[in-house]
Amino acid sequence: MTLKLAFIGYGVVGQGLTEILLEKKEMLRKRYGFDFSIVAISDIMKGSVYDEQGLDMNMILDMVKEGKKLDEYPDGKKGMDSLQTIKETNADVIIEITFTDVKTGQPALEHIHAAFDAGKHVVSTNKGPVVKEVRALLDKAEKKHVHYGFEGVVLAGTPVINLAKYTLAGTKITGFKGIMNGTTNYILTRMEEGMAYEDALKKAQELGYAEADPTGDVEGLDALGKVVILTNVVLGEKLGWEDVKCTGITKITKEDINLAKKEGKRWKLIGSAFVKPDGSIDAKVEPVKLPLSDPLAGVNEAINALTFTTDELGPVTIVGPGAGKRETGFSLLVDLLELNRKVQGEE
Amino acid sequence: MTLKLAFIGYGVVGQGLTEILLEKKEMLRKRYGFDFSIVAISDIMKGSVYDEQGLDMNMILDMVKEGKKLDEYPDGKKGMDSLQTIKETNADVIIEITFTDVKTGQPALEHIHAAFDAGKHVVSTNKGPVVKEVRALLDKAEKKHVHYGFEGVVLAGTPVINLAKYTLAGTKITGFKGIMNGTTNYILTRMEEGMAYEDALKKAQELGYAEADPTGDVEGLDALGKVVILTNVVLGEKLGWEDVKCTGITKITKEDINLAKKEGKRWKLIGSAFVKPDGSIDAKVEPVKLPLSDPLAGVNEAINALTFTTDELGPVTIVGPGAGKRETGFSLLVDLLELNRKVQGEE
Repeated sequence: MTLKLAFIGYGVVGQGLTEILLEKKEMLRKRYGFDFSIVAISDIMKGSVYDEQGLDMNMILDMVKEGKKLDEYPDGKKGMDSLQTIKETNADVIIEITFTDVKTGQPALEHIHAAFDAGKHVVSTNKGPVVKEVRALLDKAEKKHVHYGFEGVVLAGTPVINLAKYTLAGTKITGFKGIMNGTTNYILTRMEEGMAYEDALKKAQELGYAEADPTGDVEGLDALGKVVILTNVVLGEKLGWEDVKCTGITKITKEDINLAKKEGKRWKLIGSAFVKPDGSIDAKVEPVKLPLSDPLAGVNEAINALTFTTDELGPVTIVGPGAGKRETGFSLLVDLLELNRKVQGEE
Repeated sequence: MTLKLAFIGYGVVGQGLTEILLEKKEMLRKRYGFDFSIVAISDIMKGSVYDEQGLDMNMILDMVKEGKKLDEYPDGKKGMDSLQTIKETNADVIIEITFTDVKTGQPALEHIHAAFDAGKHVVSTNKGPVVKEVRALLDKAEKKHVHYGFEGVVLAGTPVINLAKYTLAGTKITGFKGIMNGTTNYILTRMEEGMAYEDALKKAQELGYAEADPTGDVEGLDALGKVVILTNVVLGEKLGWEDVKCTGITKITKEDINLAKKEGKRWKLIGSAFVKPDGSIDAKVEPVKLPLSDPLAGVNEAINALTFTTDELGPVTIVGPGAGKRETGFSLLVDLLELNRKVQGEE
């Protein structure tokens, strides 16, 4: 069957996914039996368009790049808002990638609920809803017999959730630790080369790694959100923001860095959670001096990495990119292929 | 449905898998809907037993540990050889783990063909058949609508094949490089600490990492087989033993190690294959001086690691154990769960 897709929000990640889908259309059909048609887009800035027969996405990409509104698309129905697009189109899958407040999870949260209520699958890169109520959302998806994929919320396209859920199926994951924020890892890498914190931060901002207000990265809040998500999804334990001790990298000095070097160690901002013998969770984000023999110690620049502690295999580490437009777009494809396998299985 | 399993060969890996299956029975049923019954075992040394209603595996494990023959099992049919067990029992899945010649692939190869001919799935940790004719075997399995799983042949329980096939689905893998032999990595780690090659090898033998005749490891042949397998399976390109340039670690001297140290580098035995622009394959096994910034450089002791080069994500690395009885037994569980997902999908 052909999966009919609708984009709610259409920024760089959505455009990245579109490019991947168009370039790989033939390969995806042949290798995975994945057929798709993009029927609707609704974006608060760019406008909206719906054609139940499918949109000409090459034309749409060109229009968006030229800064044109979707209303200028020659066919289809215009003017549907996000909720109408979710409820009133023939889309099977809602690709929820609106600009969303990470604390409240809105408007993504409302969109996801509306999609589930309409019996539609959701794939999304929005962290907010996952941090806020992932268990409730997964329960609801199951009850409604739909799929909720959010591979991109932790390490963008590096498929850590898929790895934990399927590839490591059968081994019990008892904890994890990782480098979950590329900006801070980039800054620490530069500091180890001798750069001062302020200069390294400035460089990260120039390269687009860090925001103008870098608080979310350097104070560890971005990593904290990922610890909360992984604890809920991979360890299967309930955990909220407030349960995680969080220290960022702003207090690390040149002296700290040099001292670690002398000890054959390296500072990394590590997010981690472990199930304690009494069943409670020890979760934190903090700078850790890792011995160079730790696989995470060799992960430099803006690269991310995650080590799962398992009962059968001991530590298993995956290293890959943790950000990027195309990489995050790709995470949606991981979710779509997973959904496609499910749907094919049910046919 | 309950999958009925038969063991062909029942050494430490089979016993390891049995322990995992017994310990995790409830979890596997609940989390993955995986139900199983072990109906037959045929081992050239230990004898054979078949009960279509399922064997009492706790009793079998005890008997094997006490050195008893399977013929002493109180029920069931005795004396069936491996081919009879494959063809004449009610098993759905053949767990092929006989002691097999890696060059000829026998007797595993004959067993696998017999299983496919009988319409039965196969999971196996035997490298020989995969190196020898993996494409033909996969084609035959497809034609017969059965599954052929061999996750354990590359990095034992570290699920690199599953990662490439499912977790990285959608990204094109254009090459790989990795530390695929734990023994040589252990020796290089000790040499970097100052130990001479001969002493490090002796220590590896004491610890059970290296065989009495260490040629297969130290001359790179074990890694070579894995390069051949991954090239065929992950890159989808035909490649034989003879197409891989192979150099082991026996000529690396203390001076080489020290020189690399001074350069901020580290010697690793790297197996790799890349698709060249003209479509041909550049495959080799050789010692490489890696910069410490390479994620593979931080992988020490007997640990293995593999970096896939992908079009969407750039390099993605997985680090985990590459050997061990229980870890290799676990690789069969990875295959069984994958098979179970397929079978559930078809129901």
